[in-house]
Amino acid sequence: MLRLYTYFRSSAAYRVRIGLNLKGLAYESVPVHLVRGGGEHLSDAYRALNAGAMVPTLVDGDAALGQSLAILEYLDETHPAVPLLPVHPLGRARVRSLALTVACEIHPINNLRVLKYLTGTLGVGEKMKSEWYRHWVTEGLAILETRLACEPQTGRYCHGDTPTLADCFLIPQVYNAQRFHVDLAPYPAIRRIHAACANLPAFSAAHPARQPDAE
Amino acid sequence: MLRLYTYFRSSAAYRVRIGLNLKGLAYESVPVHLVRGGGEHLSDAYRALNAGAMVPTLVDGDAALGQSLAILEYLDETHPAVPLLPVHPLGRARVRSLALTVACEIHPINNLRVLKYLTGTLGVGEKMKSEWYRHWVTEGLAILETRLACEPQTGRYCHGDTPTLADCFLIPQVYNAQRFHVDLAPYPAIRRIHAACANLPAFSAAHPARQPDAE
Repeated sequence: MLRLYTYFRSSAAYRVRIGLNLKGLAYESVPVHLVRGGGEHLSDAYRALNAGAMVPTLVDGDAALGQSLAILEYLDETHPAVPLLPVHPLGRARVRSLALTVACEIHPINNLRVLKYLTGTLGVGEKMKSEWYRHWVTEGLAILETRLACEPQTGRYCHGDTPTLADCFLIPQVYNAQRFHVDLAPYPAIRRIHAACANLPAFSAAHPARQPDAE
Repeated sequence: MLRLYTYFRSSAAYRVRIGLNLKGLAYESVPVHLVRGGGEHLSDAYRALNAGAMVPTLVDGDAALGQSLAILEYLDETHPAVPLLPVHPLGRARVRSLALTVACEIHPINNLRVLKYLTGTLGVGEKMKSEWYRHWVTEGLAILETRLACEPQTGRYCHGDTPTLADCFLIPQVYNAQRFHVDLAPYPAIRRIHAACANLPAFSAAHPARQPDAE
């Protein structure tokens, strides 16, 4: 059986949980606490699975795979029923570019290790840290909103009327934005898609609050 | 003909130039200066092509594609001769995860707009800015070094003996590291692969110094 090393609040793990659920793939969930004991992901045992000491890791047989987008592409190639990417290369490029806007333009700048460097090494206060967070989230969501509102390929979900990789990335980012009290009023297309996804069991079962390690 | 909106020093554009060259695809190069006149990428004309106002954009017929990884995957799907990904899903996942380590763990934290926010909004000095830069580069390169040195799939290049997407991402990141005087001595596997790639015309022709807009 597939095994997912996950942390309930990790948005990268959340993306993969959604993808696994959309495909109806059963998996064993192994919690890795990113805070307790200085961070369980930093242990030698976990580093042996994931050299970057990052969550998630998907274990399939003897293989341990990191990086959420690479994991989701792997699942799409090995379990092609319920595809997460459209058929046409242009559609695939659009879905990937939406996912990468979250993966490259928003999330990395705001993840835990970067926030720690800001407050620790650079001595940035809590208020400026929260402003930093909201700055990159609102910049990134504005790009996504423009595209999702204007491009004709947008449907009930980010691309057409079935969920894709883009939704797997968007929904955890919206969850993060809400945690940091980002006002989502300027993003009606994102809010509409978020509401549509929230109605699907695959998304709701992947929500941080519903994980076995939720606090 | 394919048209690439590029900036000589943009490492995301550099990745796509390598991929185009590896595949032997002719393209028209359209320079977009990221600094001059406050940044040509911020113009309305460029935003109409790329909502995020980011370089590169690949134009293929009527379609304008953003995000370097999505562009390279698109080129691999539409021009499958000279593949940039191996055949087996596990190999594909490995190559993508190496590329994503650059794309998600190093580059976004160190790009121009983030450095500007550090020095502008947060008032971080030049010395601390350079330390920030080197911190994330050395953290990311250390992950890549561990994997490239230890995993048996590494060959002459990041994955086996032909260049892949992973090399398209690694080489521009090494160029950036050199620009910021990062000591590459701790990364012998990366240096070896970098030297192997530098010998290939596809890589050397994509180098920033050899672009029409180089300064």
